[in-house]
Amino acid sequence: MSAPKNTSPNAPATANPMWGGHFALGPAEAFAAINPSIAVDQRLYAQDIEGSLAHAAMLGAQGILSAEDVAAITQGLAQVKAEIESGALPFSTALEDIHMNIEARLKEIIGDVAGRLHTARSRNDQVATDLRLYARQACDGLDQAIFQLQQALLAQAEAHVTSIMPGLTHLQPAQPISFAHHLMAYVEMLQRDRSRLRDAKTRLNACPLGSAALAGTTYPIDREATARALGFTGPMRNSLDAVGSRDYVIELLAALSILATHLSRLAEEMIFWASPLIGFVKFSEAFTSGSSIMPQKRNPDAAELVRGKTGGIIGALVTLLTTVKALPLAYNKDLQEDKRPLFFALDETLLCLAAMTGMVADMQPQVAAMRAACARGFLNATDLADWLVQQLQLPFREAHHITGRIVKLAELQGCTLEELTLAQMQSVHAGITEDVFAAIALDACVARRQSFGGTAPLRVAEAIDAAKKEITCA
Amino acid sequence: MSAPKNTSPNAPATANPMWGGHFALGPAEAFAAINPSIAVDQRLYAQDIEGSLAHAAMLGAQGILSAEDVAAITQGLAQVKAEIESGALPFSTALEDIHMNIEARLKEIIGDVAGRLHTARSRNDQVATDLRLYARQACDGLDQAIFQLQQALLAQAEAHVTSIMPGLTHLQPAQPISFAHHLMAYVEMLQRDRSRLRDAKTRLNACPLGSAALAGTTYPIDREATARALGFTGPMRNSLDAVGSRDYVIELLAALSILATHLSRLAEEMIFWASPLIGFVKFSEAFTSGSSIMPQKRNPDAAELVRGKTGGIIGALVTLLTTVKALPLAYNKDLQEDKRPLFFALDETLLCLAAMTGMVADMQPQVAAMRAACARGFLNATDLADWLVQQLQLPFREAHHITGRIVKLAELQGCTLEELTLAQMQSVHAGITEDVFAAIALDACVARRQSFGGTAPLRVAEAIDAAKKEITCA
Amino acid sequence: MSAPKNTSPNAPATANPMWGGHFALGPAEAFAAINPSIAVDQRLYAQDIEGSLAHAAMLGAQGILSAEDVAAITQGLAQVKAEIESGALPFSTALEDIHMNIEARLKEIIGDVAGRLHTARSRNDQVATDLRLYARQACDGLDQAIFQLQQALLAQAEAHVTSIMPGLTHLQPAQPISFAHHLMAYVEMLQRDRSRLRDAKTRLNACPLGSAALAGTTYPIDREATARALGFTGPMRNSLDAVGSRDYVIELLAALSILATHLSRLAEEMIFWASPLIGFVKFSEAFTSGSSIMPQKRNPDAAELVRGKTGGIIGALVTLLTTVKALPLAYNKDLQEDKRPLFFALDETLLCLAAMTGMVADMQPQVAAMRAACARGFLNATDLADWLVQQLQLPFREAHHITGRIVKLAELQGCTLEELTLAQMQSVHAGITEDVFAAIALDACVARRQSFGGTAPLRVAEAIDAAKKEITCA
Amino acid sequence: MSAPKNTSPNAPATANPMWGGHFALGPAEAFAAINPSIAVDQRLYAQDIEGSLAHAAMLGAQGILSAEDVAAITQGLAQVKAEIESGALPFSTALEDIHMNIEARLKEIIGDVAGRLHTARSRNDQVATDLRLYARQACDGLDQAIFQLQQALLAQAEAHVTSIMPGLTHLQPAQPISFAHHLMAYVEMLQRDRSRLRDAKTRLNACPLGSAALAGTTYPIDREATARALGFTGPMRNSLDAVGSRDYVIELLAALSILATHLSRLAEEMIFWASPLIGFVKFSEAFTSGSSIMPQKRNPDAAELVRGKTGGIIGALVTLLTTVKALPLAYNKDLQEDKRPLFFALDETLLCLAAMTGMVADMQPQVAAMRAACARGFLNATDLADWLVQQLQLPFREAHHITGRIVKLAELQGCTLEELTLAQMQSVHAGITEDVFAAIALDACVARRQSFGGTAPLRVAEAIDAAKKEITCA
Repeated sequence: MSAPKNTSPNAPATANPMWGGHFALGPAEAFAAINPSIAVDQRLYAQDIEGSLAHAAMLGAQGILSAEDVAAITQGLAQVKAEIESGALPFSTALEDIHMNIEARLKEIIGDVAGRLHTARSRNDQVATDLRLYARQACDGLDQAIFQLQQALLAQAEAHVTSIMPGLTHLQPAQPISFAHHLMAYVEMLQRDRSRLRDAKTRLNACPLGSAALAGTTYPIDREATARALGFTGPMRNSLDAVGSRDYVIELLAALSILATHLSRLAEEMIFWASPLIGFVKFSEAFTSGSSIMPQKRNPDAAELVRGKTGGIIGALVTLLTTVKALPLAYNKDLQEDKRPLFFALDETLLCLAAMTGMVADMQPQVAAMRAACARGFLNATDLADWLVQQLQLPFREAHHITGRIVKLAELQGCTLEELTLAQMQSVHAGITEDVFAAIALDACVARRQSFGGTAPLRVAEAIDAAKKEITCA
Repeated sequence: MSAPKNTSPNAPATANPMWGGHFALGPAEAFAAINPSIAVDQRLYAQDIEGSLAHAAMLGAQGILSAEDVAAITQGLAQVKAEIESGALPFSTALEDIHMNIEARLKEIIGDVAGRLHTARSRNDQVATDLRLYARQACDGLDQAIFQLQQALLAQAEAHVTSIMPGLTHLQPAQPISFAHHLMAYVEMLQRDRSRLRDAKTRLNACPLGSAALAGTTYPIDREATARALGFTGPMRNSLDAVGSRDYVIELLAALSILATHLSRLAEEMIFWASPLIGFVKFSEAFTSGSSIMPQKRNPDAAELVRGKTGGIIGALVTLLTTVKALPLAYNKDLQEDKRPLFFALDETLLCLAAMTGMVADMQPQVAAMRAACARGFLNATDLADWLVQQLQLPFREAHHITGRIVKLAELQGCTLEELTLAQMQSVHAGITEDVFAAIALDACVARRQSFGGTAPLRVAEAIDAAKKEITCA
Repeated sequence: MSAPKNTSPNAPATANPMWGGHFALGPAEAFAAINPSIAVDQRLYAQDIEGSLAHAAMLGAQGILSAEDVAAITQGLAQVKAEIESGALPFSTALEDIHMNIEARLKEIIGDVAGRLHTARSRNDQVATDLRLYARQACDGLDQAIFQLQQALLAQAEAHVTSIMPGLTHLQPAQPISFAHHLMAYVEMLQRDRSRLRDAKTRLNACPLGSAALAGTTYPIDREATARALGFTGPMRNSLDAVGSRDYVIELLAALSILATHLSRLAEEMIFWASPLIGFVKFSEAFTSGSSIMPQKRNPDAAELVRGKTGGIIGALVTLLTTVKALPLAYNKDLQEDKRPLFFALDETLLCLAAMTGMVADMQPQVAAMRAACARGFLNATDLADWLVQQLQLPFREAHHITGRIVKLAELQGCTLEELTLAQMQSVHAGITEDVFAAIALDACVARRQSFGGTAPLRVAEAIDAAKKEITCA
Repeated sequence: MSAPKNTSPNAPATANPMWGGHFALGPAEAFAAINPSIAVDQRLYAQDIEGSLAHAAMLGAQGILSAEDVAAITQGLAQVKAEIESGALPFSTALEDIHMNIEARLKEIIGDVAGRLHTARSRNDQVATDLRLYARQACDGLDQAIFQLQQALLAQAEAHVTSIMPGLTHLQPAQPISFAHHLMAYVEMLQRDRSRLRDAKTRLNACPLGSAALAGTTYPIDREATARALGFTGPMRNSLDAVGSRDYVIELLAALSILATHLSRLAEEMIFWASPLIGFVKFSEAFTSGSSIMPQKRNPDAAELVRGKTGGIIGALVTLLTTVKALPLAYNKDLQEDKRPLFFALDETLLCLAAMTGMVADMQPQVAAMRAACARGFLNATDLADWLVQQLQLPFREAHHITGRIVKLAELQGCTLEELTLAQMQSVHAGITEDVFAAIALDACVARRQSFGGTAPLRVAEAIDAAKKEITCA
C-alpha cells in the first residue's frame, strides 16, 4: 500500500489562491477556499473505504441492500482504492472532501446503486468512524516508533553501564552517575508514553457507525456487526456523543505533547553534551550540519529541530482544545478542524522519534571527557560525609560540617577531594584514615548506590536486563 | 498609599510587597519573594507527614535507625500534624517550603533526632512522593465529583425520556430527539473522563521515595516496603526519572482540560436553552443572578463561569507543558512551578463539577417550549423522505426531490409538514396517502430511530437502565 | 507577480515519506526528512532575492565587489526570479532551503561569481531579513483585508440604524438596541486590530542584514544603505539580537490571535442569529451548505469554520512562544520552526477575513423577527423605571420595586409591558399616566439612549458617519 | 481530618471548602463558592473609588445630582478608601465583588444617597473602567521594572566591553565576541518589550464609563468629562464594545509573554554559564541556594524559577484567549475570569524582573574562564579564511578549503590555530606569512568586526553610550 501521489496532505486547501503578492479574495472564492477539506482529509481514503465495505456488507446481511448491490459496491470500492493508490484518481476540490470524492467516483463506476451505500448512514457518523480507524492505526505506528527509540537507548546503555559522568541537578554537579543510568531514565519515560497511547487506543476503539446524522436511524441495522468487522470493541452507546465528541483526538494530542516534552529534554541534553565546551558526546555527519571552514564543527541540527518542534505539537493540542471549547451538540462544522492538528502532530512526532532514534544510535559518548568532568564539582562530597557518619560514627550535622571544610580546602588547593593528602584531610579531622580514599573514589561512589533504582552498575545492569525482557513490541 | 492589609487569597505569596501603587523590589527582597513555595505547597502537609512516617518505619525495620528514634519521630510527626490541623503552627516563609516547616517544628519538639529522618532521603524524592500521593487522592475526589454530576444527569434523563426537542446540527434543527438522549450524551463523555482519570491514577501510582537526590542511596533501604506502606504499586525503577519527571501531573492536567471542554459544552447549551429567546429550560434563583427591575430575569451566572473557567484549566496545562519543555535531567528548580497549576486546576474543576451538578438538578425543562420549537425547521423531513422510499418504493434521489418540494410548499404556507392537507401533499406526488401523517408525527419520528444508541425512547430507557447499573463509584 | 506553481507551502517536507501504512523511517531518511525547510520557506523567494539585490548593490558601492560582479549577480537573480515565478525552476529538497536553491541556480547561471554574493553575509542574517520583509508585507495585506470587512459591516450598519433587536447580556434580553449599533462594535474592535498590526509593523521594520553569523563582519559594509534600499527604518543595533530574536513574529501571531477571537465572536453571533430558533438573519447559498431534503436549510458552514479556525491561530501563537522559550543566544536551529506557524496563521486569518467579509455582505437581517423578539424579555423595564424616577420623582429603589411588580403582572398576563392597560399599571402605582406608553415604546427606548457611544439612532448615525471618514486604508 | 486554618495565599477563594480530605460540595455552597470575585478583584479598590469620584463629580456638574449629594458621596468614598487601606474594612464574600463591598459600606456611612451614585452607570461599565485604570498603571510599573533591568545589564556591559567569550550558535563555538555585546542584545530586546507595553497602554487608554449596561444611558451625562478626569484620552465610541471587549487585557498578556520568553532566554544562559562545567559566571549566595556539604555549590535557583515561571505567564495568555473565544456580545459572566490571569501574570512578571535585575547585578563574570574557553572550537577559523582571501587574494572557496585543512591539523595536534607554528601552517599553504598570527589573535578577531551592530569593542562602547542616553524612564 502506498500513499496517494498527488498529495500535500498538510497544506491548507487555501494556501495557493491566497498568496502571491496579493491578499484579496472575493466572497465566492472565499467560501470555495474555506469550505473544502480534501487537501487534509484525503489521508483518510483507506479508512473511508474500509468503513464503507463493512457498512455495505452489514446492509446486505440485514436485507436492506440486495446481494447484487453489495457486490457492485464492494467491487467498485476496490477499484476506487486501487485508482487512488496508483495516483490515477485526481482529487477534486469541488467535491469538497474525501467522502464525496470517493462517492462520486464510485457512482461513475457502478452507477446509481452507489447512492444506496448511504442508506442508514450520514457524513457525520462516517467521518467519525474514519478518524477513529485512523487514530487507532496511528497508535500502533507510534508504539513501534517509540519502541525503536527505546531499543537505541538500551543499546547505548548496555555499552555504558560503567561509564561515569557527573550527575547534575540545577545544571550543577551533584553526584557521579552511570551514563547508562541516565539513558535508562528516558527508557522509563518512553515506556509511560507508550502506556498512555495504549490507554488512549483502548478508549477510542468504539464504533460511531450507525449513529447517522445525530439521532440514529430508522433502518434495522446491526451496529454490533459493523463494529466487529472494523475491529472495534463495540458500537458507541449514544448517537449524539458518537458524532459530536472529539475527546479521543485531544487525548491523543495530549499524549503526543507529553512525549514531545520527553524528546525535547533528551534533545536539550544532547545539544549540551555535544557542545565542545562540554564534550560528553560526538555525533557523526549523518545528524549534524557542518562548515567547510571549520571541519570539526558539528551543529546538532536534528536535536535542535526536535526540541523546536515540541512547540508545534503542543500548539496542535491547544488548537483542538480551543476549537472544541463551548461547542453545542451535536455536529458543528468547527469539528472539520480536528484533522489538521492531529495529522500534523502525528507527522512531526514520528519524524522526531525517527530522528532521535538515529541520533541516539549515532551518539559517540566521550567516556574520558565525562570522567574528567567529574573532577569539577566535588561530586564525592556526599560520600565523604557518609563515610564520616558510617566509619567514624559522627553525627550527620558534624559530618556535613567537616566535609564542608575539606571541600573548601580542596577548592583552595585547586584539586579534587581525592587529590588531597591524608595529612591535609586529617588537618580538618584527625580521625580520618587512609580508607577514606577508597570510599571516595569515583567508581566506588557510583558502585555503592545500590538501592533499587539507583546508579550502581549492578543495579543498572539489572534494570537493562529487565527492560530488555519486558519492553517488547507487538 | 499602602496595600490592603487583609490579603487576597488568590494573590501569589509575592503579590503584597509588589503591589500597592509601587512596583519596585530590591534584589534581596526579590529572592526572598521568588524562592519560597510554602504559600503553595502547604497543601501537601498531610502527604509529607505520611511519607515521613513510612520512611521512618522502614529505616527502623532495616536497622538504620533505632526503635527509639523511630518512636520519637513518629510521635513528633503526629504532634506536628495535629498542630497544623488545629491552626496552632503558623507557617514561616523563611523556612521556604512545607518540608522545612515540618522538619523545623519536628526538631523543636524532638530535638536533633529529627535530623536522622533525612537519612537516605533528599528533598527531591520527598517532594516527588508527596505530590504523587496528593495527585492520587485528587483522582479519587474527582471521580466522586464526576459521578455526582452523572447522577444528576441520569435523574433528569429519567424524567424526560419522552420529552421531545429539536436535535440541532450547525445550530440548525435537524431531527427531533429525546431530551433524555441529549443528556445521556454527557453521561457518556463524563464516563470517559472518569476512565482517563483512572488510567492516570494507575500510571502515577509508583513510588519515588528512596531515589534520594538523583542517584539512589548508599544505605540498605527497602523501597518495596515504603512503596507498599504508602499504597503504591511499587517503587519507581530509575532514580533520575523518579525525581525529574512530571508527566503524571501533565497527564492529569490534560484529563482535566478535556473534562473542562465537556463541561463548557454543557454550560454553553444551558445558557442557550435558558435564554428567553429559546426558553427550553429555566433555572431557579439558586444558580442565577437577577435584577430588581426585571424580576423574571435569570442570568445563568454559574454556567457562564463554568464556561469561562475552561480557559484557566487549559492555561494550567499549557503552563506545565511549557515549563517542562527542554529541561535537562535530573531536578531543576523550575519544577517547583508544578504545584500551583495542578492545585489551581483541581480546585477549579471540582468547583465547576459541583456547580454543574447543582445546575443540572436545578434545571426545569420546559417541555412544551421544546416541543413547540420542533415546529420550526421541518425536523420530520427526513422521515417523510424515508416514508416515500419505504412505502412508495421511490428511489432515494426522487424521494429527496419530492420531499424538498413539499417542504417548500409548507414554507410558503407558513405551516409545518404535518399541517399540510393530504391534497396539498398529493399535489406534489399523487401516490401519497393518509398514512403519511402518522409517519411524520413528531413522536413517531423519534420512536422510530431504534438503532442501538439511537434516540427512540425505548433505546434511551435501556441506555439509562444500563447506565444506572454500570456507572458506580467506589 | 504570481506564486510558484509547484508548491504546497504549508506541507511538512516530511509528510509523504512517513505515511502510507508504514511508520518506520531509517536514520538517514530521518535526517533527510527533518532537516530541509524548502517546503515551507520557498514562500520567501521574492524577499530573498530582494535582499540579495540590495546586498550586492551595497557591496558594489563600497568597492567590496566589482561593478561587473554586481551586474552579473543582478541579472542572474532576475533570471532566477523569473524562473521561479514561471514554474520553470523546480525546488530541490537536497538543497534544503530557499536560500540554497536560489544560490545554486544562480551559480549555474553566472558561475563562481555567485559565491561572492555571500561576502559579509551569512544565512543567519539573510533569513532574518527575508522574514522581516515578508512579515512587513503581510501587515499591509492584513490591513487591507480587515478594512474590507469593516466596509462590509459599515454598509450593513448604514442600512439598519433603526432596525431594533434585543440587546443581550448573559444571552438574556436586557435592553433594545439598534442592529447597526451592534455591528459597529465590531468595527471598533477591528480598528484596534489594525492599530495593533500597524504598531507591530513599525516595530519589526528594522534591518538585520549585515549582522552576519552572529557578531558582525570584518568587511567595510554600509548597513544604512541596505536598510534604506529595503525600506527599513534603519539597521538593527545589535548583531546577536538581529539573528537570534523572533519577538516580532510572536507579536504578529498575538495580534492575529486577538483578531481571531473577534472574528470568532462575530461568527458565534451569526450562527446564533441564523438558527431558525432565533431567525434574526438569513444567509444565501453562497456561504452556507444545504440539504436536498430540507431545501430551506442553511448550515452557516463558513461562520462555523471561522469560529473553528480560531483554535489553530491561537495554537500557532503557543507554538512559537514554546519554541523560543529558554533558547540561548545566538542562532539555534529551533528557530527554523518560526515560519510554518506564521505562514499558517496568516493564511488562515486572511481566509477567515475574506469569508467574514462575504458573510457580512450576504447577511439578510430579518428586521421583523428582531423586533418581534423584543417582546420576549421585558426589554423596556429599565425605561419604565427611569420614567417613574424622572416623571413621578420616585426614589430609585421604589421605582425599581414598582417596575418589578408591573413586570410580574405582565408576565402573569402573558403580555408585554406596553400591552398592559393603563388601569393595570395604575393598579400597581396610581400615579402612572398615559404618557408612560410613549416612554416605553421600543423605538422611544432606543432613541432616548443618546449618551455618546449609545444606541440612539442619532448617535449611531453619527458614529457611522465618523467611521466612514476616519476609517481608511492606504 | 480538617483543613489547615491559616489559609494559603495562593489558593482560590474556593479552595478551603473543597479540600481537606473530602471533595464534595453541595449545590448551594457551589454557587456561593463559584460566584463571588472579591478575593480577586479587591485589588481594584483604588481604581473603583477613583472612577466613582469622577462619575459623581460629573453627575453634579450636569445637574443630575445635587451638590450636597456629590459632597456626601465624595466624603463617604474617601472614608471607605481610608478604611480599606488601614485594614479596618473586612471584605465580605456575601457582597460578591469589590464594587458591592464599597457600595454597601458607602451606604452604611452616608445612607440612601449612596444609591444615587449608580445613576447612569452599571456594573458593566464600572468594572471595565476600573480594569483599564489598573492596567494603565501596571504598564507604568512594568516600564520602570524593565528599565531597572536594562540599567543592571548596561552596568555589567560597561565593565566588560573587552571581556571576550565564545560566541555560540547551536551551542557550538562560532566566533569570539565581547561579553558586553552579548548583554547588550538583551538591552535591545527589553527596549522592544517596553515599546510594546507603551503601545498597549496607549491603545487601552480610552474610557468605557457611561456605556451603562450595554446600550448607553438616557441621562444627559458628559462622557468627555469623566474620561478627562480619569486621565483617559477620551470616551470609547461604542457602548457594546466598551463593556464587552477584553482585547486590551489579552494584548497586555501577550506583551508579558514575549517579555517572559526574553527573561527565560537570559535565565537559561545564566544557568549554563554558572554551571561549574562552564564556569563563565559566579553568583553570590544572595540569589542561589547552597549545600552544607558542598559549600562551593551555588544552585542558581532564582534563574531557574524565572525560566520556570515563563510557563505560567504564557498559560495566563492562553487562559484569556480561550475564555474570550466565541463569546457573544455584550457582557457575559465569563469575563469575570479576566482579572485573575492578568493579576497573576503581572505579579509573576514583576517578580521575575526584580529577580533578574538582582541576578544581573550580582553576576561575577569569570573573564579568564571565558577567554580560556575560546581555545575550544577554533573560533578564529573564519578570520583565518578572511586573511587568506584578503592578503593572499585566494578565492573564497579555496580559502575555506585551506582553512579546513589547517583546522584539522590543529585538531590533530591538540592545539589552537594560533599555537601552530608558521611552518605547520605553511605545510598547508606555502604563501602564509608571520602576519597571520596577529590576524587570528582573539582580541584582533573581535576588534575587527566593526560593522554597525558588530562585536568590536569600539562599536560596543558606542552602543552602550547611545543606550545610556536613549534609554530613559519617566
